[in-house]
Amino acid sequence: MVHNGIEYGDIQLICETYHIMKDLLKMSADEMSAVFAAWNETELDSYLIEITADILAYKDEDGEALVEKILDTAGQKGTGKWTSITSMEEGVPLTLIAEAVYARFLSAQKEERVRASKLYPKKPVNFEGEKAAFLEDLRKALYAAKIISYAQGFSLMREAAKTYDWKLNLGGIALLWRAGCIIRSVFLGKIKAAFDRDPDLSNLLLDPYFSETIKSLVESWRRVVGAAIQNGIPVPTLASALNYFDGYTSERLPANLLQAQRDYFGAHTYERIDKPRGEFFHTNWTGRGGKTSSTTYNA
Amino acid sequence: MVHNGIEYGDIQLICETYHIMKDLLKMSADEMSAVFAAWNETELDSYLIEITADILAYKDEDGEALVEKILDTAGQKGTGKWTSITSMEEGVPLTLIAEAVYARFLSAQKEERVRASKLYPKKPVNFEGEKAAFLEDLRKALYAAKIISYAQGFSLMREAAKTYDWKLNLGGIALLWRAGCIIRSVFLGKIKAAFDRDPDLSNLLLDPYFSETIKSLVESWRRVVGAAIQNGIPVPTLASALNYFDGYTSERLPANLLQAQRDYFGAHTYERIDKPRGEFFHTNWTGRGGKTSSTTYNA
Repeated sequence: MVHNGIEYGDIQLICETYHIMKDLLKMSADEMSAVFAAWNETELDSYLIEITADILAYKDEDGEALVEKILDTAGQKGTGKWTSITSMEEGVPLTLIAEAVYARFLSAQKEERVRASKLYPKKPVNFEGEKAAFLEDLRKALYAAKIISYAQGFSLMREAAKTYDWKLNLGGIALLWRAGCIIRSVFLGKIKAAFDRDPDLSNLLLDPYFSETIKSLVESWRRVVGAAIQNGIPVPTLASALNYFDGYTSERLPANLLQAQRDYFGAHTYERIDKPRGEFFHTNWTGRGGKTSSTTYNA
Repeated sequence: MVHNGIEYGDIQLICETYHIMKDLLKMSADEMSAVFAAWNETELDSYLIEITADILAYKDEDGEALVEKILDTAGQKGTGKWTSITSMEEGVPLTLIAEAVYARFLSAQKEERVRASKLYPKKPVNFEGEKAAFLEDLRKALYAAKIISYAQGFSLMREAAKTYDWKLNLGGIALLWRAGCIIRSVFLGKIKAAFDRDPDLSNLLLDPYFSETIKSLVESWRRVVGAAIQNGIPVPTLASALNYFDGYTSERLPANLLQAQRDYFGAHTYERIDKPRGEFFHTNWTGRGGKTSSTTYNA
């Protein structure tokens, strides 16, 4: 199941990079095919990148790229959905795959999107910069987000193993997926190596190889997401992965305010950074005595 | 249930704006309290904005802001999770609330985040621009993302009503939530008015009032998300909402490539933009005869 969820993520990431190449860089299908073929000689070497190069090169009977004649409404068989639901049940942030599933749902709302596109005309895109350098940024952004997706997916397997008392060999799973699977890639070998170094690794981002790698990619990744956001090109998975990375690497998140709010309206109590974990406090925030201001159940 | 999911979203959005004020603009709790109090006199007028102003003003025994002493690990009672799972089952993109739920999960991984923060030191933030203007951008970003969250939540109720054959009065629900609920706000009156104009409205973004409003907010929203992305401040819900908006308003999404991939590796077939819906095609993309290159189930 997680294999298939990861497949949803990998595919959506490739679609977003294709979208940026086409709409921001105004590249032809043949140019894009050449870029994906070149990427397949790098760390991105994988079956899905390889077939993307094939697809973009394929001509319809009229000599035009066939891919551009295909309706942009994605189908699905439900395994990505199932992975996302499981992540919710296990309490594991699996943001990238969930966004990939939602992107398929949104693609299927074609008639509504056509109506909305008329109501909200897109402004002209404006690409500033050097194309070759930006393509390299794009390649790095794709690789970085892919690492996040696998980090999230392997964390989900690790938590599920605890819940169901499974003995999972995570490195062995990575190795297994190198054979015959749609997500097969050179990259899976790096994951195997990380679990060989530390079979109890709680998140791939804590592995020395992956941390050095991500550090070398992150500035490119920020530039790509920034350019897409600025130009109105949707990048739900590239951006969600970056936000997860920025959250995961934050010692301090704003959930202190969230806990204060929950204590304010629902007396849910909070812990303090200057007191031991497990000691709970409640404050009468208004000074007016226990007002919770809610007549509904709260969360 | 959807009420509570929306509550998760509203709270997370406020947390992200607080995070940006604190870390990017380096504002004190008192300054932030004054900003939220001022926002409560605008379209954002709501219970949660009001209590945020109270919380930020509340002093601990030592005279410092109490909120900063609170541990940043969010609890939850599961209703946001339940809403997100339902959206997956109904096929409705509910990206903002799902990201809010995942943000709570991530906040709870405090020990891992502390480890990761040492491995990935944050670069110094760099705010360029005029603070008052940026605060107005931030207010507009919060309002825009809030509209998206409600648009997604009401779409979920609409789809669930079809599935379960419920007669839902969506305008009436908006009105109901104005009384006593944690998410009560002036804004809910605008939603009521939209459903009065068109009881069958499929998405709030298609309502004339909301479309004019979003158009007046979107450039500010892009600047805020761009600044956060550039400076490594996680904004999972502000960004996810913007990516949804950009996808929803796209006549053409890159799901054509996705369908080509699914047809390539799994012979799932595709529809064409130059043929009637419901007519399905399959291509032998490699020209080598029916190779699907997969030994696993695929999605």
